[in-house]
Amino acid sequence: MMLAGQPTPALVLDEARMRRNIARLRDRLAPFGVTLRPHVKTAKSIEVVRQLLTDGHGPATVSTLKEAEALFAAGVTDILYAVGIAPHRLERVQALRAQGCDLAVLLDSIEQAGAVVAACAHGAIPVLLEIDSDGHRAGLKPQDERIVAIGRLLVEGGAILRGVLTHAGGSYGARSPAELEAYAEQERAAVVEAAERLRAAGLPCPVVSVGSSPTAHFARHLDGVTEVRAGVYVFFDLVMAGIGVCALDDIALSVLTTVIGHQAEKGWVLCDAGWMALSRDRGTQGQALDQGYGVVCDIDGKPYPDLIVDSANQEHGIIALRPGSTQPLPDLPVGTQLRILPNHACATGAQFDDYIVLPADGGPIAIWPRFRGW
Amino acid sequence: MMLAGQPTPALVLDEARMRRNIARLRDRLAPFGVTLRPHVKTAKSIEVVRQLLTDGHGPATVSTLKEAEALFAAGVTDILYAVGIAPHRLERVQALRAQGCDLAVLLDSIEQAGAVVAACAHGAIPVLLEIDSDGHRAGLKPQDERIVAIGRLLVEGGAILRGVLTHAGGSYGARSPAELEAYAEQERAAVVEAAERLRAAGLPCPVVSVGSSPTAHFARHLDGVTEVRAGVYVFFDLVMAGIGVCALDDIALSVLTTVIGHQAEKGWVLCDAGWMALSRDRGTQGQALDQGYGVVCDIDGKPYPDLIVDSANQEHGIIALRPGSTQPLPDLPVGTQLRILPNHACATGAQFDDYIVLPADGGPIAIWPRFRGW
Repeated sequence: MMLAGQPTPALVLDEARMRRNIARLRDRLAPFGVTLRPHVKTAKSIEVVRQLLTDGHGPATVSTLKEAEALFAAGVTDILYAVGIAPHRLERVQALRAQGCDLAVLLDSIEQAGAVVAACAHGAIPVLLEIDSDGHRAGLKPQDERIVAIGRLLVEGGAILRGVLTHAGGSYGARSPAELEAYAEQERAAVVEAAERLRAAGLPCPVVSVGSSPTAHFARHLDGVTEVRAGVYVFFDLVMAGIGVCALDDIALSVLTTVIGHQAEKGWVLCDAGWMALSRDRGTQGQALDQGYGVVCDIDGKPYPDLIVDSANQEHGIIALRPGSTQPLPDLPVGTQLRILPNHACATGAQFDDYIVLPADGGPIAIWPRFRGW
Repeated sequence: MMLAGQPTPALVLDEARMRRNIARLRDRLAPFGVTLRPHVKTAKSIEVVRQLLTDGHGPATVSTLKEAEALFAAGVTDILYAVGIAPHRLERVQALRAQGCDLAVLLDSIEQAGAVVAACAHGAIPVLLEIDSDGHRAGLKPQDERIVAIGRLLVEGGAILRGVLTHAGGSYGARSPAELEAYAEQERAAVVEAAERLRAAGLPCPVVSVGSSPTAHFARHLDGVTEVRAGVYVFFDLVMAGIGVCALDDIALSVLTTVIGHQAEKGWVLCDAGWMALSRDRGTQGQALDQGYGVVCDIDGKPYPDLIVDSANQEHGIIALRPGSTQPLPDLPVGTQLRILPNHACATGAQFDDYIVLPADGGPIAIWPRFRGW
């Protein structure tokens, strides 16, 4: 089976590009002597995870317990749940651990630590402390005295203090290689400082974990770091291209769509990929080059110059030339199939239940299911 | 079972509010002598459809053939697929029609009409012509000579010319009741003009269809119109509240979430409803009152003054007071359950596989499945 003629809209995965992206980060990190713990929140696919993990058992990062459960069912046992733990979820955490999953949790407060300690009556839970390296979300500042207080509460309460973790989410706003390098160093320095604080207090800190796709590709050194997490690098997307982490032809994910109409006077081509397919993510809106709802390519994945999805309704995408473009509008009759490169692979992927895979060996297309929910 | 303690994030449907919204539009339209053809793209739920349709068989509007197939399997037979038909979908249309579904399609071009005529070799397909009443998307201007040309091509080719249709999507940008009334009149006048053009050419036009939730609630009269379509009114949302079509306490949909942390210095409360739960829809961004990613309520659905989801990551929502607010930040310890009113019911609903329903009779919660995909 070929891609042409497949029902639309559909999510297309270019396996050769994905493999290249996976190899690129693996090779880049090899000299640093750190563990790569890929984040599966982007792919949510066992088939992708099999290519992503060095062996079948991990290590892996997840954003939901649903992901953890799906991975564990597929044989992955070394899993970090990298969203601050809500007390009501500890029962599910313990259920997975009781089956043999080495699932670790994340927290940044005395309240959460108290809940984890209480749950440790049913078996010790490994914990990472979340550190805030750039002020963008959760975590304790590396100087915060609560780091030691929480660490001590956990150890004395029977939990396993596994280490410290940070995520340089602010790096998505970087504008240059120099800024990306600075974010990476800020991320590294913050979490290493927190680790030293724990160790100086006589507390264990075997794991020092950093992670974001931009910083993972731009860190100059990772002294004191033991593991790196990254997710979107597996597919990449227009946001990553916009900040210079990848090129357009590294983007492994696209949405297959069909032309359903035109408004010739306005230079519009209407297609059946609306926001239900592309997602509402407008991550390039604040970048130097606003890509609308995505870059329009032909069915072979070659971008048309300046052609983007300018706006989107639920089941309609409105394709137009970028404002100010002098390019000609290509002739795209009703029924033409196109592919749209997405702003944000995590958000666009989540709109679909499976991938149409263009296999790296050039063979017939395959279908890989995705999982979803919490 | 009660709502408190349910796993989060989850989609909550307040059935009493939904019933009130359904009754409101039904009652409002009754004096106009038009048929209400609800759009199920918002709810995507058989249980909601059963309450929405006057009898079990229709009429209904859908945005995907998947919706049409799900409705037909549940006994709905009078269905309009209100997105411009792509030729490759005609086989699925004919498969539904062959089973007894009175499924009509929409088009606005000679190319599409040619494809429909070709497919009519396997049975006549009912067609509506899409009219552009406000320049926001697809359709032919009411003055366009192609309306008659396409109508004639269809009739002579053995299709059933059922009528004309428009959607005043531009009304979502209205700012006042007067503007909403003007959009409604513009929508009505455009499609009636197109119908008269067909009839003057000796062509049939039994159906004259208008529709959008804002215009359906603000039309002063509907002379010449035979049916009204609307979808989001079933649940309403912050965008509809922002343009004055509903009040906050009409919004029947919310996302149940749990507090997972704080950044006290910044006045942030972190919760487990990120954009994966809320969607990336920022439909209130351009309105007078920007609601961020949603309005924060307590578990009983009562809004906290000025408290919104200020920003969102994949699995994190960052709750904060609206900029400039003088309200106190409520005390929301880790583990507190909250409900978030969404910007856009269609987009937020699509992130979930089911509803937790608070039944109108005050009884225990129920679970209603949603369908998705194409």
